[in-house]
Formats: sequence, structure tokens, C-alpha cells
Amino acid sequence: MTNGESSMAIEVPEEQARREAKGKAPLLIAGGTRKHQRAAGGGWKKGVAIIDFILRLGATAAALGAAASMGTSDETLPFFTQFFQFQASYDDLPTFTFFVIAMAIVGGYLVLSLPFSIVTIVRPRATGPRVLLLALDTVALTLTTSAAAAGAAIVYLAHNGDPSANWLAICQQYGDFCQEVSGAVVSSFVAVAIFMSLIVFSAFALRKRH
Amino acid sequence: MTNGESSMAIEVPEEQARREAKGKAPLLIAGGTRKHQRAAGGGWKKGVAIIDFILRLGATAAALGAAASMGTSDETLPFFTQFFQFQASYDDLPTFTFFVIAMAIVGGYLVLSLPFSIVTIVRPRATGPRVLLLALDTVALTLTTSAAAAGAAIVYLAHNGDPSANWLAICQQYGDFCQEVSGAVVSSFVAVAIFMSLIVFSAFALRKRH
Repeated sequence: MTNGESSMAIEVPEEQARREAKGKAPLLIAGGTRKHQRAAGGGWKKGVAIIDFILRLGATAAALGAAASMGTSDETLPFFTQFFQFQASYDDLPTFTFFVIAMAIVGGYLVLSLPFSIVTIVRPRATGPRVLLLALDTVALTLTTSAAAAGAAIVYLAHNGDPSANWLAICQQYGDFCQEVSGAVVSSFVAVAIFMSLIVFSAFALRKRH
Repeated sequence: MTNGESSMAIEVPEEQARREAKGKAPLLIAGGTRKHQRAAGGGWKKGVAIIDFILRLGATAAALGAAASMGTSDETLPFFTQFFQFQASYDDLPTFTFFVIAMAIVGGYLVLSLPFSIVTIVRPRATGPRVLLLALDTVALTLTTSAAAAGAAIVYLAHNGDPSANWLAICQQYGDFCQEVSGAVVSSFVAVAIFMSLIVFSAFALRKRH
């Protein structure tokens, strides 16, 4: 009877935790039962920690991909004068330079945060690494958002320009450059979305007592 | 003697709290002393809450000022052809439209958050309003950062252009427009700085037990 109860509880730890939170589960203060409750809460948190680790890998790929795609963007027009050749490159525009630097920093932070994420998998009940990751993730989210927003603003202007103010759209000349840059901005917004879900997961995992 | 001690504690609650945190203050478990410790912690938190309220008023002014400055920016060139007149306005550039909307949302949120800030002044030990404000402030910080970064990217490009790609700088024609827009971007970065200090203060006030 005891054996069957414990195996059932291992299968549905979420429901157990929910019933405890609502106060409907019977409160048994025997030592074995309390230990078993801890194991159930630990399993639920371990699942969140594994999802956190996988999302972090995805965010690393998105951030480093954005930095690499922007950093290799370069296009030279096929005609030139005697003194000058027109060339579009990321390092002529400070916004894109900031984008590359910010994405490289975020990618480096994400790689360094992977060990802490592994610690939360091994010890699901430890709150220290989760709080640290939550705080640093918020800072990284702000940095990524600012880089992505600034990049998107320039990319939109490069595509469309401002006809009423007679501000030209350089994508008409630099088509390949614009495509690479647009891909980098899209990739950075993917990183922003992953950071937002990481923060929500961390906050949710910190909130529950069991 | 008791009267003098309590008046001293009201004057230097920070030092009392610091000594308690370091464990150097004598632990007296008599009922009256514990009540006095609570009052000291409440006074320290009340000061943080008052600073929070004042900073919130400043952030409201910065956000609404940015929205108003950007929303009234408009310049028409003094020459025109038969069919067309060149005009720079914030609603031709989607980035600036987003800037105005985001700043108006943030300003509205800040006005609506003032009552919650007053609640933390009246009841310094309540954690509910502080947690709510901390979460919503983080969201508002991200929105403000994205608007400010996107606006700054466009303003830089308008001032300097990209000479090597032959992308012109429209501030040479639209000087007044550029000044108004630059002021709005500076004001939005002031709001970003205030939000960052608000979040740090809230987290600090939530961390201390006393």
C-alpha cells in the first residue's frame, strides 16, 4: 500500500504540489511523508531547471548568430570613382557596432551562465543560483532589448526611408547588406523572447515553496 | 531614560538597522524592545518609500516631457515645388511614433503607480505593493529602454549619416526638428536612469527583514 502510494506521487508531482498549495491535501507530519513531499517539489523544479538550460542554449545560439551575422555584413557597390568607392559596413554605423558588441556580451554571459543553470538542475531546491540568474537575466534582457530596438529602427529606415522628408532608403543600393542586417535583428528579437520566458520560469520556480 | 532612548532611535534608524544586520546589537527579547525594533525598521523603509515616490514624480515628468517634445516635433522646409513640399514630422518615421506611444504608456503607468507608492509610505512593512511595483517597473524599464535606444539610433543617424555609404544626414536641412527630437531622447534616457534606481531601491527594501 505504501509502495503504491509513493509510485503514484512520483508520477503526478505537479498535482500534489497544487493540492498542497490550496490546502486540500491532508497534512501528515510523519517524517517519511515530509521527505516524500520534498522529493516531489524537487522533481517539479528539476523539470523547470532542465527547460531553463535548453532555453539558455537556444538563446546563446540566437545571440552569437546575431553578432556573427551583423559582424560579417559588408557590401561594396560595383562602381567607383577615382577617389571614392561606396561601401556599406556595420562598423560605419555606431548603432550596428553597438549591436555587435551587445550581442557578443550577451552571448558570453549566456555561456558563463550555463554552469549555474546546471547547478539548479543538480540541486533543484537551491534558491541562490536562481536569484543570481534572475537578476543577471534581467540586466541581459535590457541590454538585448536596447540593441534589438536600435538595430530594428535603423533597418526599418534603411528599407523604407522617409519619403516626405526626402531621406533616401539605402536598401535600394545595398540589397545583400540589408538582408544580412535584417536577419541579425530578427535573431536578436528571438533572444529577447527567450530571455522573457527564462525570467518568467525563474520567477515561477522561486515563488513556489514546495 | 526610556524616553531618551526611543527618541534617539527615531533619529538614527539606519544605524540601528545596520547594527542589527551585523548581529552586533544586543538581542533583547522583551516585548517593548521588539516593538521598538519594528518601529525602527518601519522608519527606514518609510524613507525609502518617500524617495521612491519623489523619483516616480521625476520619472513621470521625464516620460511625459519626452512624449510631448517628440509629439510636437515638426518642421517644414521653406521652399517647395509645385507638387510637393518637404516636411519632417515624427509620424513619418515609425520609430518616433513608437517612441511617442511607448513614452505615453510609461507616463500613464507612472501616474497610476503613484497610489501604490503612497501605500508603501503609509504601510512601510507591506511587501505586496512593493513586489507589484518591482515587477511592473521592470516591464516599464524594458519598454522605455527599447524606445530610447531606437530613438537614439535614428537621431544619431540624422545628425551624422553614413558618409562611406553615401547616406545623407537630414539634420543639415531640418535643424530645429533634430533639436526637439534629441531633447526627447535625452529625456527618455533620464527616465531609464530613474527606473533603474527605482528597481534597485525596491529590491533593497524587499531584501531586509527589519
